[in-house]
Amino acid sequence: MESNSSKYEFMAEPFHCDFNHHLFLGHLGNHLLNASDFHSSEHGFGVVYLNTINSTWVLSRLAIEMSEMPGEYEMFTVETWMENIYRFFTNRNFVIEGLDGKVYGYGRSVWAVINKNTRQPIDLLSVMDGTINKYIMPERQVPIDKPSRVKMSDAAKVAGSVVAKYCDLDLNGHVNSVKYIEHVLDLFSMATYKKNRIQRFEIAYVAESHYGDTLTFYREEMAENEFNIAIKKSEPGSDEQVEVCRSKVKFVND
Amino acid sequence: MESNSSKYEFMAEPFHCDFNHHLFLGHLGNHLLNASDFHSSEHGFGVVYLNTINSTWVLSRLAIEMSEMPGEYEMFTVETWMENIYRFFTNRNFVIEGLDGKVYGYGRSVWAVINKNTRQPIDLLSVMDGTINKYIMPERQVPIDKPSRVKMSDAAKVAGSVVAKYCDLDLNGHVNSVKYIEHVLDLFSMATYKKNRIQRFEIAYVAESHYGDTLTFYREEMAENEFNIAIKKSEPGSDEQVEVCRSKVKFVND
Repeated sequence: MESNSSKYEFMAEPFHCDFNHHLFLGHLGNHLLNASDFHSSEHGFGVVYLNTINSTWVLSRLAIEMSEMPGEYEMFTVETWMENIYRFFTNRNFVIEGLDGKVYGYGRSVWAVINKNTRQPIDLLSVMDGTINKYIMPERQVPIDKPSRVKMSDAAKVAGSVVAKYCDLDLNGHVNSVKYIEHVLDLFSMATYKKNRIQRFEIAYVAESHYGDTLTFYREEMAENEFNIAIKKSEPGSDEQVEVCRSKVKFVND
Repeated sequence: MESNSSKYEFMAEPFHCDFNHHLFLGHLGNHLLNASDFHSSEHGFGVVYLNTINSTWVLSRLAIEMSEMPGEYEMFTVETWMENIYRFFTNRNFVIEGLDGKVYGYGRSVWAVINKNTRQPIDLLSVMDGTINKYIMPERQVPIDKPSRVKMSDAAKVAGSVVAKYCDLDLNGHVNSVKYIEHVLDLFSMATYKKNRIQRFEIAYVAESHYGDTLTFYREEMAENEFNIAIKKSEPGSDEQVEVCRSKVKFVND
């Protein structure tokens, strides 16, 4: 039987590695998004096709769990497949492996297809007359928890803020999914990264933000080395804050 | 005769493209650095070898001139070679081409090899008993000006500032050469990038900056659409400013 998963090869490029000589999690996230994009294009339902029906993929949630990060210059593969398709979203899984088969980690993600004008989700089973459904692999799980609901209490404190600039923007003029990850990682000190590595990272994309928006990062320590983060935007000239992302970072010292 | 230049293929990945659907100049810069690294490794004088003699390559100057930027998903090549080797630096050139041979642009760069402890340049002709010298191609020029001396006057005004964070740092714990480029590009508004594209970009790396340093960007408009920029660092708790980079950005509206 033909497999509906595909595997793509990447390199942990030197300028994509941190001072610990391992790939930055933001660049790994970018590779997972590339793999998703290549995989959906391969099967005919990539953004190029979706643009012809005035719609596009949007990432809703991403969870990554790593036992190790690829080191400087290491080649690694990202294998991806769709686990399930529901009416308005699909679950896509990832395995990150070394060329020798060593598993570095896993990912889970949730995607929707939206209409580019209304920004509303469209019925996935209507895409390509429902044939998208024949590519799912419900039996192929990954051994990590699904993206969770990240809870925040009033104890969350402002940990930083940035104004969205030119290099933050994606093709659509929205703040780039990968840049949110980098801004979250930047909330933690060099001392934290010297002692620890990220064991699990989660992000949920709630709303879009734009050029000039101020992004304020609220952070709450839930347990030792475990942080929940809410990102809120305020538009230029306004103090009103609207939530755009929730994220969770779990460090481990091993 | 064997050529001493090499050509590497890259893709303008979707999350590396700006809202005009063309590759960000920062990511192009990263590809030029990768090509330099791959080329020097191929000939035996890459960072892996240099590390064995306690030294490393450092980029001193980079100039890029583009007639067009690769678009979303386009494959392109970066060809690179060393034009000349002097005692303490080498000139390395680049051609950026589409797979159909269309030239997108050119680059010039200046590199030194430094001792990792003293941070002082070492004699390039001493590397590999001088055999590095046999790879130069002095006859192969690129049709763009050499990196210039970027002049600043007292008219330069503060255009922005950032504090160096985790994702800004490279393998050595210094602010990453590519991140400086991104921070310079971020000084310009979305309106500027809507109307114009970057025709020429230059950067000279003067000193290293570190985690927690505040980088202040001074900008001076030299002519219409032509800006000189100086980046100065101040260490945490200090007001003293030390220059770390000079850059020049020339926009064109074509």
